[in-house]
Amino acid sequence: MRIAIAQLNFHIGNFESNTEKILSAVQKAREQGADLVCFSELASVGYPALDLLESPDFIKKSNELLDRVREASSGIGIVIGAPRVNPELPGKNLYNSAFFFADGQQLGFADKALLPTYDVFDEYRYFEPGKSFNTISFKGKEIALTVCEDIWDLIHEDPIYTFHPMDVLMKSKPDLAINIAASPFSEKQHANRKKVLKKNADRYGIPFFYVNHVGAQTDLIFDGGSLVTGPSGEVADEMPFFEECVRTYDLEKIVENDGISKFQSTDRITLMHDALVFGLREFFEKLGFKKAILGLSGGIDSALTAAIACRALGSENVHGLIMPSGFSSDHSVADALDLAKRLNMSSDTIPIGKMYDNFSTELETFFGKTPFDVTEENIQARIRGILLMAYSNKLGHVLLNTTNKSEMAVGYGTLYGDLCGSLSVLGDVYKGDVYKLSNYINREEELIPRSSILKPPSAELKPDQKDTDFLPDYDVLDPILKMMIEERYSLDKIISKGYDRAVVEKVYGMVHRSEFKRFQLAPVLRVSKKAFGYGRRMPLVGKF
Amino acid sequence: MRIAIAQLNFHIGNFESNTEKILSAVQKAREQGADLVCFSELASVGYPALDLLESPDFIKKSNELLDRVREASSGIGIVIGAPRVNPELPGKNLYNSAFFFADGQQLGFADKALLPTYDVFDEYRYFEPGKSFNTISFKGKEIALTVCEDIWDLIHEDPIYTFHPMDVLMKSKPDLAINIAASPFSEKQHANRKKVLKKNADRYGIPFFYVNHVGAQTDLIFDGGSLVTGPSGEVADEMPFFEECVRTYDLEKIVENDGISKFQSTDRITLMHDALVFGLREFFEKLGFKKAILGLSGGIDSALTAAIACRALGSENVHGLIMPSGFSSDHSVADALDLAKRLNMSSDTIPIGKMYDNFSTELETFFGKTPFDVTEENIQARIRGILLMAYSNKLGHVLLNTTNKSEMAVGYGTLYGDLCGSLSVLGDVYKGDVYKLSNYINREEELIPRSSILKPPSAELKPDQKDTDFLPDYDVLDPILKMMIEERYSLDKIISKGYDRAVVEKVYGMVHRSEFKRFQLAPVLRVSKKAFGYGRRMPLVGKF
Repeated sequence: MRIAIAQLNFHIGNFESNTEKILSAVQKAREQGADLVCFSELASVGYPALDLLESPDFIKKSNELLDRVREASSGIGIVIGAPRVNPELPGKNLYNSAFFFADGQQLGFADKALLPTYDVFDEYRYFEPGKSFNTISFKGKEIALTVCEDIWDLIHEDPIYTFHPMDVLMKSKPDLAINIAASPFSEKQHANRKKVLKKNADRYGIPFFYVNHVGAQTDLIFDGGSLVTGPSGEVADEMPFFEECVRTYDLEKIVENDGISKFQSTDRITLMHDALVFGLREFFEKLGFKKAILGLSGGIDSALTAAIACRALGSENVHGLIMPSGFSSDHSVADALDLAKRLNMSSDTIPIGKMYDNFSTELETFFGKTPFDVTEENIQARIRGILLMAYSNKLGHVLLNTTNKSEMAVGYGTLYGDLCGSLSVLGDVYKGDVYKLSNYINREEELIPRSSILKPPSAELKPDQKDTDFLPDYDVLDPILKMMIEERYSLDKIISKGYDRAVVEKVYGMVHRSEFKRFQLAPVLRVSKKAFGYGRRMPLVGKF
Repeated sequence: MRIAIAQLNFHIGNFESNTEKILSAVQKAREQGADLVCFSELASVGYPALDLLESPDFIKKSNELLDRVREASSGIGIVIGAPRVNPELPGKNLYNSAFFFADGQQLGFADKALLPTYDVFDEYRYFEPGKSFNTISFKGKEIALTVCEDIWDLIHEDPIYTFHPMDVLMKSKPDLAINIAASPFSEKQHANRKKVLKKNADRYGIPFFYVNHVGAQTDLIFDGGSLVTGPSGEVADEMPFFEECVRTYDLEKIVENDGISKFQSTDRITLMHDALVFGLREFFEKLGFKKAILGLSGGIDSALTAAIACRALGSENVHGLIMPSGFSSDHSVADALDLAKRLNMSSDTIPIGKMYDNFSTELETFFGKTPFDVTEENIQARIRGILLMAYSNKLGHVLLNTTNKSEMAVGYGTLYGDLCGSLSVLGDVYKGDVYKLSNYINREEELIPRSSILKPPSAELKPDQKDTDFLPDYDVLDPILKMMIEERYSLDKIISKGYDRAVVEKVYGMVHRSEFKRFQLAPVLRVSKKAFGYGRRMPLVGKF
């Protein structure tokens, strides 16, 4: 039997395009001589459709798409993920299911039994867990069909669920397993996927066809990397990252190791770079945007954001605004202009001094002579926000936010100022990784000026300001934040790793006190296992 | 047996204050001669603690609080809601439990079995569902103890869950039931609670003690209204709304109907008013803020917000900024000043013309002479945002957002402009209800100028602008939005209710296209069953 994996990029709500894409992949699989073609989890609707799943119009369209796919299954088997309306209440209205079609008929289906409800996943919100498990007979083979999480609990040190659906399915002695997934990128996820399949092969001893989604939706980046493993769990093929691909495998030969996987980098920074470029490009494509704008401060965060945007959209579609104030250092404008030149992107320079003075004069009437404080710092950042948004409104450019995760975590940024933007490109990238990514961008050519990389970080909102006036050094701050946010270590555990109690408590306090800023944040491209956004939900509390 | 209900306001993360509050209520119950005192769901940590529940430090503090409460149970029984660490994996780390203490011992506990995971609730994210059900014997009575949702499925037309925990508990023939809850306010929730208890009484025929949380947390307002019902489900007592209360009942006399409930208004607008005042006050108290600022446009939304703020915080703590532009009508400033006078609040007037001209001139260099469009409209709104935030930063006032739900739904507002603010007061109030609330405020005295109520709504961002240039009349728009957002009707169903297809499709499109603005919204005080915020999660999609 020949099995095709269709690793495709679905667009939530765009049922016409999804239908065409699926039908054309079915045709391609036929041309490759496939007996069966497999699409990813919730392929009909895209992932994550969130509360659109509660819209009757949305589900109706998904069902119409399914009908067309079923009708297209003449002479070929099709596995496809889609919501299945729960025919029997009580329970949630939908299952998260894999349908199996062939010759215009539905041969069977599998409902996802283990529903991830943690981090960015809310599947219990929408779906009823599957309760019955049956293999599907097709062309003389027994197939164990599961959906994503159903095979994942094997790698959890502390298991989350009370059983493994595959344990039940194995009673029917399947010849192979197909798992359809929508597993988003994070630094180590590609390795986790291989580990999961290995654990499953060790336990069940059959080949696995693992079909992942590729594409990005708002903040989540699906990197593809679909996998085929043999009965002992070695990887026979890994599909490309960040690309659509339809590829057919001969089950009997499991599998001509065509070695594609060995050409894929697993370097953390390379993958993070590729994910950010892909995620940014996808955000624009899915929403029908073309051009981006961002502020260029001469610093490293805006330089890296600009470089990523130029890669994703083409330099001709990225415009920079350089907006020096009286507190900007001389090198700021020079570095920003140098960057624009190196990246071959356009820029305008608008000094904000006059506008700033104008606000100061107006406000002095009411405030009187008061000391320069965060008010005046923020006014500068917010004037820049107005100018950037004016460009966005007038010219249709989408504003990119340039704040990094370290700053965002401690609230070192101005709400409605430098925290403006439709998409946060670096909001899940710690400052230390901003440097690594910049050096990666520069590996062949100095695209980001060395001066932007080497100078001490500064917001330049008051005279001689440095980030370290307010924050610990980033090489102390980043690991503390990572332990707090990603690992959820207790205070004491972080301190036990060799960090100063006063510093850890200070950071802890800054993170908690700045939750209100992140409440109003732009979507953040997720590249770690815990990003700001839907995956991290915090109440606004005064104490703790 | 005498049973006390302690309807208290817990502060998430503020374990010291929660401990003191609980111990002092235990003492009060003792003084009232109670044998047993009952606290609400997750009383130890407050509700909803969200991802703080994943913090080991947070759970440790909750357990310390529980120990102190247990130790304080000498001579009295105590029922209290708290997370219970799951001693046996696999599963989530916590149960959402009710503990029963007496004489320093733990007599038993009940784990919540039905975990609401819809709208604002994410309980499957944190909790393992309870699996065993036992009544608790105390002073010769068998008590059926449950947590919130465990008794609610009886009122759902389409049941969500597969069983009722009370059905299991009834096998032990309990004499009474205690349900501890954290049930947030929405327009009809007080009636739903009575309906739930009636349904339970009809099925089980025993008295119910229903203990609700009171207080607000960020966007969620818990209104209290704890209930005691007799064996046939009639309400023996309803505790006050929006107030803490410790009150003891004689089980044997179930119950001296002291008729308190009949003094409580169930008028929708009265309750909404009280909820908004309470929610706003609570936001400030919980976060340790005192003073508010808001923009006064002379329109009804800002007038109502100001009136609510003055009631919640005292007029002396509310400051208005009047910021006319060249497009402001003459009556705008006059109406705003009139409002400030009537409410006895302070205000400053800062015309924004010069600042606006300044931005226009700077930008003309780059844009050239272009037609006046949304860019220029937004610059005005954003200048106002800068000025309001400058006051906020300089004087420590918290900025209130004044946008109503109708505008917010269709995206009729400027991101980083009039959508600024730490708290959206009216973001869950349709324009029609804004009028009703304003008339309610004015029922005894004209606090909101009649002129603000009577004039046609306008953003006044360009000459002679009216909301209806862009939007359907609010008496058409509001019901369409309500059917779409709250009822999740399909397009066809809304049209079948007598609305024009073209209008419905236009509104539908506006709601979908403006999701990106709501992604960055301030917390919205929730007064309906579907508010913008965590309770409504939408992907940003270009199509649909």
